[in-house]
Amino acid sequence: MRTAEGAGADGVILSRTSVDLYNPKTIRSTMGSIYRMPFLYVDQIEEILPELKKRGIRTYAAHLKGEHSYDEEDYRSGTAFFIGNEGNGLTEELSAKADTWIRIPMHGQLESLNAAVAASILMYEVCRQRR
Amino acid sequence: MRTAEGAGADGVILSRTSVDLYNPKTIRSTMGSIYRMPFLYVDQIEEILPELKKRGIRTYAAHLKGEHSYDEEDYRSGTAFFIGNEGNGLTEELSAKADTWIRIPMHGQLESLNAAVAASILMYEVCRQRR
Repeated sequence: MRTAEGAGADGVILSRTSVDLYNPKTIRSTMGSIYRMPFLYVDQIEEILPELKKRGIRTYAAHLKGEHSYDEEDYRSGTAFFIGNEGNGLTEELSAKADTWIRIPMHGQLESLNAAVAASILMYEVCRQRR
Repeated sequence: MRTAEGAGADGVILSRTSVDLYNPKTIRSTMGSIYRMPFLYVDQIEEILPELKKRGIRTYAAHLKGEHSYDEEDYRSGTAFFIGNEGNGLTEELSAKADTWIRIPMHGQLESLNAAVAASILMYEVCRQRR
């Protein structure tokens, strides 16, 4: 929520498997963003996809098998990222429903980045392209 | 440490006011990076600056008063970022010793980003420029 506000995102959509936004530690970590950023809880992300499609919002899943690096796509129009939770990552079912798979290049022997970090890198790339 | 490994950084330098890297929760959160990324504890960051200078490494402080946005600088040669700790940010003394002040643009009413998030955005911008 905090980085989403900083990057100028329009909102955050969460599912049942997302963090509990009303946990006091989570609230505190948002540094007030929770009171300013629009957010929506849905049962499953899948149910919001027709609405995104209707609005011409392109969906991207960060995936190790993404063909292009995240910075090779054009995010200047409507953009939504699927971010898995820290424990389990994105489900294959949801990944399969994204319009595009992108890859965050990783050196070393890491298997993944922290979920909030991955989301931050992606949101700030959008922000950079829109400046 | 985790994002530094992913972004291909050469190492992390910490000071007495940095997080305790040997805290079990910290170790766990690095997802093994602590065993792979070179790191160095110094008493004060200031003492390492002559060595960075000798090696032609340019130092950048993320600062609200930075003239240029972080993505307007050229990081293709030696680059080091000063990252403040989450509680207090960078000291004015250390900021003043950076070669360049850069700004991470922020929308909304945020005063700052999370320290690890800010570091991640900067390190991945370096990574992007070097590809």
